[in-house]
Amino acid sequence: MDTRIVEMLGRIVPASADVAKIARARLDDLTKPRGSLGVLEDCAARYVAARGDINAKIANPTVLTFAGDHGVAEEGVSAFPQSVTVQMLANFANGGAAINVLSRHAGARLKVIDIGAAGDCDSPAIVRRKVARGTANFAKGPAMTGAQCVEAILVGAEIAKGAIEDGATLICTGDMGIANTTSSSAIYSALLGIPAEDSVGRGTGIDDERLRVKIKVVKDAVARCSTLKDDPVAVLAAVGGLEIAGICGAIMQSAAMKVPVLVDGFISGAAALVAAEAKREILDYCFFSHLSAEAGHANALRAMGVRPLLNLDLRLGEGTGAALAIHIISAGIKIMDEMATFSAAGVSGKI
Amino acid sequence: MDTRIVEMLGRIVPASADVAKIARARLDDLTKPRGSLGVLEDCAARYVAARGDINAKIANPTVLTFAGDHGVAEEGVSAFPQSVTVQMLANFANGGAAINVLSRHAGARLKVIDIGAAGDCDSPAIVRRKVARGTANFAKGPAMTGAQCVEAILVGAEIAKGAIEDGATLICTGDMGIANTTSSSAIYSALLGIPAEDSVGRGTGIDDERLRVKIKVVKDAVARCSTLKDDPVAVLAAVGGLEIAGICGAIMQSAAMKVPVLVDGFISGAAALVAAEAKREILDYCFFSHLSAEAGHANALRAMGVRPLLNLDLRLGEGTGAALAIHIISAGIKIMDEMATFSAAGVSGKI
Repeated sequence: MDTRIVEMLGRIVPASADVAKIARARLDDLTKPRGSLGVLEDCAARYVAARGDINAKIANPTVLTFAGDHGVAEEGVSAFPQSVTVQMLANFANGGAAINVLSRHAGARLKVIDIGAAGDCDSPAIVRRKVARGTANFAKGPAMTGAQCVEAILVGAEIAKGAIEDGATLICTGDMGIANTTSSSAIYSALLGIPAEDSVGRGTGIDDERLRVKIKVVKDAVARCSTLKDDPVAVLAAVGGLEIAGICGAIMQSAAMKVPVLVDGFISGAAALVAAEAKREILDYCFFSHLSAEAGHANALRAMGVRPLLNLDLRLGEGTGAALAIHIISAGIKIMDEMATFSAAGVSGKI
Repeated sequence: MDTRIVEMLGRIVPASADVAKIARARLDDLTKPRGSLGVLEDCAARYVAARGDINAKIANPTVLTFAGDHGVAEEGVSAFPQSVTVQMLANFANGGAAINVLSRHAGARLKVIDIGAAGDCDSPAIVRRKVARGTANFAKGPAMTGAQCVEAILVGAEIAKGAIEDGATLICTGDMGIANTTSSSAIYSALLGIPAEDSVGRGTGIDDERLRVKIKVVKDAVARCSTLKDDPVAVLAAVGGLEIAGICGAIMQSAAMKVPVLVDGFISGAAALVAAEAKREILDYCFFSHLSAEAGHANALRAMGVRPLLNLDLRLGEGTGAALAIHIISAGIKIMDEMATFSAAGVSGKI
């Protein structure tokens, strides 16, 4: 693996078990039956443990939406033309996409990064860090060269570092890229051993014919990278996407800086899987925001052993699920901070 | 049924199918694959259809938390002493309970109503509308007289009316009352025919011995009111609680005024069931905020044919799940309002 990635992974330590324990004790002393706020309590304890600080607060949550194109789109695996990727960059720049609305709703900053769109969007609202004009068609050969994949990971890491240095203590990941569910399914199947039939879904809404093609493309690609299983970054280069690599790098860097990450849905989940396969402790820093309606997501999350926060039949990407879930983690932190204890409130305990 | 309740129910009309259709068309024209925002889109369409206005917005969401005591507590069905109900009223008044924190987090108003606590909390922050000092023990006889039950329903209706006249276009319901899961389980079992074993859970955290007692209490009570099945308000009087009747009245009145209701969890769900059995159209106005960790809730929601918005293992009540879910419904409304259309954004449609 590239030495810069190895160095970044080397800085990642497990979340603090001591802080988690103090958090649990504090939560148990609040005026509610023990554990009765379920996942909110888990979020609070996991968040402060990841930060290594019992008094950690959520500040400047920032959504990083990476956009890239996929050569595999030419196989006809998507319901939308490739031109939509760059058209959506303009939509993000103008504030009219779902992630704009939901970032505003969450009080979150939004940064959109063109890390590999085929076309150009010249708006200053888009961060231009193009590694290539889309990937190669992985039905015919590797999606990226090893160097491109590493560069995209490092771009993602640098963007996350910038957001964190600007004050973000919670990073949300998002994606835009026509055909990127195909790429993500291939990553899940290659790294988790899930059959293509169980990792592939209808993405933006393809018909049965395109679905058959998509499954075959994924199956063939996974067969071709069967020898790469132990090298997640090599799998990413073989069947991944530039935006997926960017998200992967953002997750690695956030974990290295002890900043928790709200992983969006199907595509961001594939990036998180690559990161976690490279360094298991990264999962200590990941919150999986929602269960996507994309068919393979439940299988993938089950195989990864993680539970998503929301289940709202979303299948849009962009970071929309992550932006929505900020509210849940913040709620957990506020519960721990602001609720009265049994003794302070004069409330009787259990009989 | 009491004529005032009959009159209120008579004002309830189905949500507007026309507005729902216009909403769906608008949602389908936004820059996202059709239906890809799943439940958010459903929330938006259902909300405006209930309001009967395609441009309806959420303003001044208000949490109404009704508190009451339960005579059945003397059977030893709760892990906490009855004194906790009034102690929690003081905690609400001082802003230290979970519902205070989560109402603030949601930007919602909170009104706490003492509709039947055994003790007194003199804080001006508590709305004092005591119908009785707790219910009678329904293991020994009816929990309420018919007149008390009607009065509590009308108090709930009046409180909701006040909140709506003060500008609320979304009402959230909540409860506080030691032993009120026992009462709610009895309502579910009596009205839905669910066996007591499947409607009873551990509430605030009871042990196996108390659980056995609780199941027996519910089973016996349900057997005694088997002839009342067709009169939901009579079932409510027989095994319900004053706060449950208050919530039921608030739901009825909100529906009569075309204001949607976010129904909290297990206890509020029992109140919503009584209301819906009295007038089926009330379900058009109800959003079920979360699936409680309380064992019987999944069975009850399934029998009612409704899907909850969140599943966060909450089992606290007070309105906490409802307060959290405001964010989800608001997100849906903002999506419908603020997103660009395909044509306005110049984004290509499906191939």
